[in-house]
Amino acid sequence: MAAADPELAIGFDDVQRAAQRLAGVALRTPVRRSRRADELSGAQVFFKCENFQRMGAFKFRGAYNALAQFTPAQRRAGAIAYSSGNHAQAVALAARLLGMPSVIVMPHDAPPAKLAATRGYQAGQAGSEVVLYDRWAEDREAIGRRLAQERGMTLVPPYDDAQVMAGQGTAALELIEDAGALDALLVCVGGGGLISGCAVAAKHRLPGIAVWGVEPEAGNDTQQSLQRGRIVRIPTPQTIADGAQTQASGELTFPVIRALAAGIVTVSDAQLASTMRFFAERMKMVVEPTGCLAAAALLEGVLPLRGARVGVIVSGGNVDLPRYAALIGAGP
Amino acid sequence: MAAADPELAIGFDDVQRAAQRLAGVALRTPVRRSRRADELSGAQVFFKCENFQRMGAFKFRGAYNALAQFTPAQRRAGAIAYSSGNHAQAVALAARLLGMPSVIVMPHDAPPAKLAATRGYQAGQAGSEVVLYDRWAEDREAIGRRLAQERGMTLVPPYDDAQVMAGQGTAALELIEDAGALDALLVCVGGGGLISGCAVAAKHRLPGIAVWGVEPEAGNDTQQSLQRGRIVRIPTPQTIADGAQTQASGELTFPVIRALAAGIVTVSDAQLASTMRFFAERMKMVVEPTGCLAAAALLEGVLPLRGARVGVIVSGGNVDLPRYAALIGAGP
Repeated sequence: MAAADPELAIGFDDVQRAAQRLAGVALRTPVRRSRRADELSGAQVFFKCENFQRMGAFKFRGAYNALAQFTPAQRRAGAIAYSSGNHAQAVALAARLLGMPSVIVMPHDAPPAKLAATRGYQAGQAGSEVVLYDRWAEDREAIGRRLAQERGMTLVPPYDDAQVMAGQGTAALELIEDAGALDALLVCVGGGGLISGCAVAAKHRLPGIAVWGVEPEAGNDTQQSLQRGRIVRIPTPQTIADGAQTQASGELTFPVIRALAAGIVTVSDAQLASTMRFFAERMKMVVEPTGCLAAAALLEGVLPLRGARVGVIVSGGNVDLPRYAALIGAGP
Repeated sequence: MAAADPELAIGFDDVQRAAQRLAGVALRTPVRRSRRADELSGAQVFFKCENFQRMGAFKFRGAYNALAQFTPAQRRAGAIAYSSGNHAQAVALAARLLGMPSVIVMPHDAPPAKLAATRGYQAGQAGSEVVLYDRWAEDREAIGRRLAQERGMTLVPPYDDAQVMAGQGTAALELIEDAGALDALLVCVGGGGLISGCAVAAKHRLPGIAVWGVEPEAGNDTQQSLQRGRIVRIPTPQTIADGAQTQASGELTFPVIRALAAGIVTVSDAQLASTMRFFAERMKMVVEPTGCLAAAALLEGVLPLRGARVGVIVSGGNVDLPRYAALIGAGP
């Protein structure tokens, strides 16, 4: 680790080294434009399409970057993760690619497609399994720590981990390489892994860029934390953005967000659904509710950025089809 | 026109010149892979994603290639087209880009999104309008010819036109440039414009390639035509593949298909819906029913191509969201 700011968990070098580890393993996802998005926002919009990433979300970047640095002993014992969905699939896939077992702690009410996909990625890898828990009653972090201790496996947190954060930052690095200079970058915020990595990468490459986080209205813990200057914990929020149903920013991610982000704005579930329809109708892309957070802030007029060159991270596309159909079919 | 085979309406040179005209105007759409598609088919599958093309379908290629060759007098009078949807939008957009009026003859029951999009492309272009007709009772070709004569506009047929065919062929040209050698190419068939252009391009570049056409079961006029050795006309077929509800191949397209295609296979509406779900769930892409024809033949096991390198044209993504939601939400 070589943080430029020793107060922060990661520096630009960490993101750059993550990019080297991910080269040829993660997909270099496309940066797409939309005339309609430009019209709606008055900005020039560059969408980084992580819904086209391996396993359908940016999470693969962080998970692979973390697991690729395991020692031989760690590799033999394997990786363990707790996740509401995409991080689970990411660790399961990264573990299989690196030939190690994985144990994934998932909520029993996680989308069936995410459960099935996680088990699919584990298939044929001895020692791998999914462990279910009740997210309204049990503490997934405690379950993860206990299993890690019992089995000698290494816990890979979904966001509060320097190598996970560094891996996620490669999305912004690629976006800026492909789109050129940007005035603003919009990133969804759950636990803060994506925005912290992306902010480190973006502010190093473009010191003048404004990095905005976007949270669901129902779960604005990071917005509250920035206002109070300390990490605020909230009850598990009820929102269609299941990937952002986090209760608090991380101990490592929050200081980065506080130091580098311009601020946090929030969007409603109705604005997320409207943005899902925009992506389907205009850009022919399936984007999960959480993946619409950043775009919704721009396209629904929450964050006025007229005349600016704006990067938007589309974080993922994993959503059960019946639920997706209900959300886009309902009409405006 | 410089056809290698003087019996055919177009030759490879026509496709190559179309590619030059379209450079920097049409999008070079991505060629995407899917591990799941490879598993399902046992082939190596390369999807040419024309659902990401301007106006959402390959049709822009042919329309722009035709309109770009109008004389100054033709440009002043403008273009007229009849179409069940995508060709309408393509001509409207190409006309606006080239600064000429367009009149589009569309069925009154065309998907509302296609009607709205066509009118949107015409906005601000004096002399442009949409004329509706009843496709179960009226002859769109006769209406188009009459209006063309009355207004001095040039009729751009949806498929039976050498420059339209040549433009569509650029999709296969790009696919082969990006994917490399292919053993087979799968293309949807309505009136035959796409497959005839693509077959000319593909067989020139890769003489050993097998170019397969795919029609809806309910509308296999081209399959019947190949069997009988002459163009067979059928009643307007009832299928969810609204872009392939054609009654007969064209006078120019059929000889190309007969000379260059390996054959035609058909898929059911249920197989199309299943393939729509595959694209949404696995590749995070919205594909219209007609755009699923080629992929369905491969992924649903109609055409066994185990071990082969297969190109698949995903022809478009324009589908009304409520209808799309109903088709993908219904379950397998």
